[in-house]
Amino acid sequence: MTEVSVLGATGMVGQRFVSLLANHPFFRIAALFASEKRKGLKYGETVNWVLEEDIPESVKNIELRALGEEVPTKIVFSALPASIAGGIEKELAENGHYVFSNASAHRYDEFVPIIVPEVNPGHFEAVKYQNTKGFIITNPNCSTAGIVIPLKAIKDTLGIKKLVVFTMQAVSGAGYPGVPSLGIIDNIIPHIEKEEDKIKTETRKILGDFSGKFEYADFKVEARCNRVPVRNGHTEVLFIETDKKADVSELKEILKNFSALPQKLNLPTAPKNPIIVKDDKFRPQPVLDRNAGKGMAVTVGNIRKADIFDFTLTVLSHNTIRGAAGGSVLNAELFLKDGKLEV
Amino acid sequence: MTEVSVLGATGMVGQRFVSLLANHPFFRIAALFASEKRKGLKYGETVNWVLEEDIPESVKNIELRALGEEVPTKIVFSALPASIAGGIEKELAENGHYVFSNASAHRYDEFVPIIVPEVNPGHFEAVKYQNTKGFIITNPNCSTAGIVIPLKAIKDTLGIKKLVVFTMQAVSGAGYPGVPSLGIIDNIIPHIEKEEDKIKTETRKILGDFSGKFEYADFKVEARCNRVPVRNGHTEVLFIETDKKADVSELKEILKNFSALPQKLNLPTAPKNPIIVKDDKFRPQPVLDRNAGKGMAVTVGNIRKADIFDFTLTVLSHNTIRGAAGGSVLNAELFLKDGKLEV
Amino acid sequence: MTEVSVLGATGMVGQRFVSLLANHPFFRIAALFASEKRKGLKYGETVNWVLEEDIPESVKNIELRALGEEVPTKIVFSALPASIAGGIEKELAENGHYVFSNASAHRYDEFVPIIVPEVNPGHFEAVKYQNTKGFIITNPNCSTAGIVIPLKAIKDTLGIKKLVVFTMQAVSGAGYPGVPSLGIIDNIIPHIEKEEDKIKTETRKILGDFSGKFEYADFKVEARCNRVPVRNGHTEVLFIETDKKADVSELKEILKNFSALPQKLNLPTAPKNPIIVKDDKFRPQPVLDRNAGKGMAVTVGNIRKADIFDFTLTVLSHNTIRGAAGGSVLNAELFLKDGKLEV
Amino acid sequence: MTEVSVLGATGMVGQRFVSLLANHPFFRIAALFASEKRKGLKYGETVNWVLEEDIPESVKNIELRALGEEVPTKIVFSALPASIAGGIEKELAENGHYVFSNASAHRYDEFVPIIVPEVNPGHFEAVKYQNTKGFIITNPNCSTAGIVIPLKAIKDTLGIKKLVVFTMQAVSGAGYPGVPSLGIIDNIIPHIEKEEDKIKTETRKILGDFSGKFEYADFKVEARCNRVPVRNGHTEVLFIETDKKADVSELKEILKNFSALPQKLNLPTAPKNPIIVKDDKFRPQPVLDRNAGKGMAVTVGNIRKADIFDFTLTVLSHNTIRGAAGGSVLNAELFLKDGKLEV
Repeated sequence: MTEVSVLGATGMVGQRFVSLLANHPFFRIAALFASEKRKGLKYGETVNWVLEEDIPESVKNIELRALGEEVPTKIVFSALPASIAGGIEKELAENGHYVFSNASAHRYDEFVPIIVPEVNPGHFEAVKYQNTKGFIITNPNCSTAGIVIPLKAIKDTLGIKKLVVFTMQAVSGAGYPGVPSLGIIDNIIPHIEKEEDKIKTETRKILGDFSGKFEYADFKVEARCNRVPVRNGHTEVLFIETDKKADVSELKEILKNFSALPQKLNLPTAPKNPIIVKDDKFRPQPVLDRNAGKGMAVTVGNIRKADIFDFTLTVLSHNTIRGAAGGSVLNAELFLKDGKLEV
Repeated sequence: MTEVSVLGATGMVGQRFVSLLANHPFFRIAALFASEKRKGLKYGETVNWVLEEDIPESVKNIELRALGEEVPTKIVFSALPASIAGGIEKELAENGHYVFSNASAHRYDEFVPIIVPEVNPGHFEAVKYQNTKGFIITNPNCSTAGIVIPLKAIKDTLGIKKLVVFTMQAVSGAGYPGVPSLGIIDNIIPHIEKEEDKIKTETRKILGDFSGKFEYADFKVEARCNRVPVRNGHTEVLFIETDKKADVSELKEILKNFSALPQKLNLPTAPKNPIIVKDDKFRPQPVLDRNAGKGMAVTVGNIRKADIFDFTLTVLSHNTIRGAAGGSVLNAELFLKDGKLEV
Repeated sequence: MTEVSVLGATGMVGQRFVSLLANHPFFRIAALFASEKRKGLKYGETVNWVLEEDIPESVKNIELRALGEEVPTKIVFSALPASIAGGIEKELAENGHYVFSNASAHRYDEFVPIIVPEVNPGHFEAVKYQNTKGFIITNPNCSTAGIVIPLKAIKDTLGIKKLVVFTMQAVSGAGYPGVPSLGIIDNIIPHIEKEEDKIKTETRKILGDFSGKFEYADFKVEARCNRVPVRNGHTEVLFIETDKKADVSELKEILKNFSALPQKLNLPTAPKNPIIVKDDKFRPQPVLDRNAGKGMAVTVGNIRKADIFDFTLTVLSHNTIRGAAGGSVLNAELFLKDGKLEV
Repeated sequence: MTEVSVLGATGMVGQRFVSLLANHPFFRIAALFASEKRKGLKYGETVNWVLEEDIPESVKNIELRALGEEVPTKIVFSALPASIAGGIEKELAENGHYVFSNASAHRYDEFVPIIVPEVNPGHFEAVKYQNTKGFIITNPNCSTAGIVIPLKAIKDTLGIKKLVVFTMQAVSGAGYPGVPSLGIIDNIIPHIEKEEDKIKTETRKILGDFSGKFEYADFKVEARCNRVPVRNGHTEVLFIETDKKADVSELKEILKNFSALPQKLNLPTAPKNPIIVKDDKFRPQPVLDRNAGKGMAVTVGNIRKADIFDFTLTVLSHNTIRGAAGGSVLNAELFLKDGKLEV
């Protein structure tokens, strides 16, 4: 078992990390970090647990450490808010830690990869250029994480020229307390700060190449992001212009047959089928599809030819599992050799 | 006062008709029609009233007539379901009635106009070709009604080449009982049957010309329609490619300054400003903006230049007022001469 | 394996039966029944599946039979609507079938028990008096099923004099399509037809005795029932006047330590702890507690002494699992001998 | 016109004050106060407006003053949080201001009345004992404000022995940002801190007497408070044991005929009928009834005899209008003589 630490363990993404790591076949939680004011408190007594599944017994009595205290493990998962993640993660990497971060702070750094194991495992290469004893590896923003998997399948077969993304994002994407209930019951909020730029940048970085430097994929991307009264699960509608033309049944086959390295390695957090294709026009739906593959599979449905661009389809993924903690854990699993930290 | 009848008076759109007509300066409700089984019942006792405002006192004791009975007024408002509206409305027109219909049954007929008074009042001309003693005039589908007003302002100034529409539609758009609560609480439904085709067809018919026959506007349209857990108010995100280029401030001026015939004639149901422009990126929102102009104004916000196409913006309108009964009543107001039926 | 049939298999409770029985260690689904119009259709193709978990593979290809056709198994689970359950279930019992019914039709019959295995397994005795070759056994209404378990624990130790029940019931309690979304988004419905009488009658029948005839428990019960915008999980607030006085910590011990026959027999659907006690005043909550014990445990929290009566507490249970299909399956499990049908 | 100031003008209750006072026939807003950090900012630019109606034009350009600066008007409305209201309001009263406060800080003070003009206008008398140049007058907690009006009608005619209150409270009762959306979408929170004690204490103080000191009404009260996913409108179920017995139709008459001083004086904010009685068991409902009497009327429905106690009924009132700012404004209206400040 490889020991790991979690930074920002009491927030919502932190809770997902704890939930995913508590009974993990490769990892054992050695330390949980939170803000100074919680130092010394037992995790189970101070956390405002908001996940549907119960808090794992094994973590209830872990005494929280304060951010800034020494981190006792090589591998560190970071669920820190972007505002403070920057400095803390950098220092950890300089001190030799392997930081798997869900924060956006370093995603756009010159040699920090944004990794989705099914899409761009080769980008691990970039960490060699980070020039620190350890490294930082990020996973994408929650609205990017879900769509790059089907986009990878399409790019590799048909090529992508243009992409338009419309999102209907769950409130858990804003963390806890996040969106006030008065702002969202019986309502839609038609903007999420910085989200559209994240999709535009991250999609192209992840689907691009790395060979000594990142070359962003050269298709055009536009995005409009909306917050909707849904607890979990981001629904995203895509319009895609492809290089090669295909019909809907060919596209469905491409998506259904997609499988990648995490599936080949049978990694513990990898879904058996990364993309689930629904023929039903009324799918995917958050309540029915967000937990597919334990929240790690992406469900694609309502696929048809479009009058502008070539295809349009709807993608649903669990924003705090595939789109946050689960994505980060899968990155760490892929990084190990046969489940062991040998690097 | 001109006497009017309402067909399908107990349904949700029917209730909106009743609410708007009960204290109307031009119209007086003379007869309310519903299905056979309600014949003879008092409206106030049989209707399952679902509007936020109270049922008007003046209609409570009106005895319902059955569809098929003689309609005692020249002007008839139809809130019938599309499945039965076709035959009934046609027969009424043949018998000399002026039918203002919210149903889709005849919208695509050769000489039936779909009218939004701020956009295409000239299409009234088409009724002369209907070759019946009376006529049928329709208003658009609820997801089309809101967007054609800002599109008209843009088409007249900048021209439109391409349009992509992405909707987040309120449950009231499906009528009552409509969407089951288990289908929509904490959920999104990523498809609404026939809705995308309605937007594609109606937008181009309304923004097209009529000169003896309808010439559809020649821009391309794509649409994706979604149902969201919102009671009232459709939120629609548009991408627009224009002929002439402009910057965001010019576009805002175009929208703010838009005014049309209903405003000039000061029609009772016409909003003073048909388009309300918000500078706030987080607007429009259903709870804050759906009742603007008593549900007849359209609110536009979150306007910016787009990397694909030229502009993107968000439009919100009240789907059962501007998008249904209110639109139909405004059509009838425009049809009268100085508030009187002289034709 | 004992073969079973499910009547009303396409409705929401029917789907729960199918979900619970598909991989059951004692039972194998031999036949699914629905209305005439679905006869011959494959279950997976015709059902409008609304559960969060996927439809089991093993049932997708079962061809539906029509109600009225011969039922091929001794054991029958009934998820029929009350309006048609009466006659069908009676005939099945007369023909020798063992009917485990979720319908209310026969609950108040002279010799039909309403059984909750943790509470009144002795009431099975009543079936001997039914004077038919087979029998009918019912489970309670969904708002009664959850509360009788803690009430049993209290009655056996402190005695009960008076009981007031306030419910906040999930929309799934009304089935599918059930409650229209316009009726419940941003809303409360302060009445549920017949529900208050069901609680009053069933609580006292279940907690009463059977010795040749049912003797209803002799405490007084009042109830007020409300529908709230929650998908699953009924929240119920109780006020209880007891015979013997106790303090809150004693009551908590009574509830925590409660265990009964299904736990002793280790029945497959029985939760390890039938009552989960929360010390947190803000628990139980539907999203956090409804799936406790796979939907079969009851969560009790916010317990305190009351100024009127003795105690007040909040009870939460999953209304379509413990409160419907799960309760019925547990009844059947208890009825078997060592998992086998030997009667 | 009497000039007034509003303290805490940017919060949600502050916004309601501003909305109600902006076009008031008696009052003119002279000053708006908020926290230090907003000092000098224009109200319209800094407020995060969350009400359904638009922000009034006349207040948009008012420059905010900081709490602690001199208050320029005799009459002050306070929407301050309880935590800071105590000291500030006391000092204002000592300096001669007439403070109409929505805060709970002073509600239980020896000579501070909690006034609902329809119920206990005689309690104004208490201010004479406050021994300050000015005075503090409070309105009740939002869950108490609605129920004391029908309780007054019942107490005066039938007498009250015991009262049980069960609430389903809207999220706006917690202010803004208040309840996080993750805490309440598809959920119920079964506890609201301090709320039950407020109902118990305030109900008896308001319905009690003042003759040199407050004598609390001597009936017993119990309460259970719950938060539900509703934007506005508290729904409360009551059980009442009365001194004199009556049947349901008598009770309905008592409630329908109730009218009081604010109605007699025709005060601008007073609803014509303070209590609206619905015969429909499915009423009141938040979406249909919360705006009755512009949010100042209380709707009572689902009335029946109870098996425990005498009556049970459901009461709905708008928690931020009747239950907060509107109640306070009505208090000030009653205090003036013929709409003028002559005291």
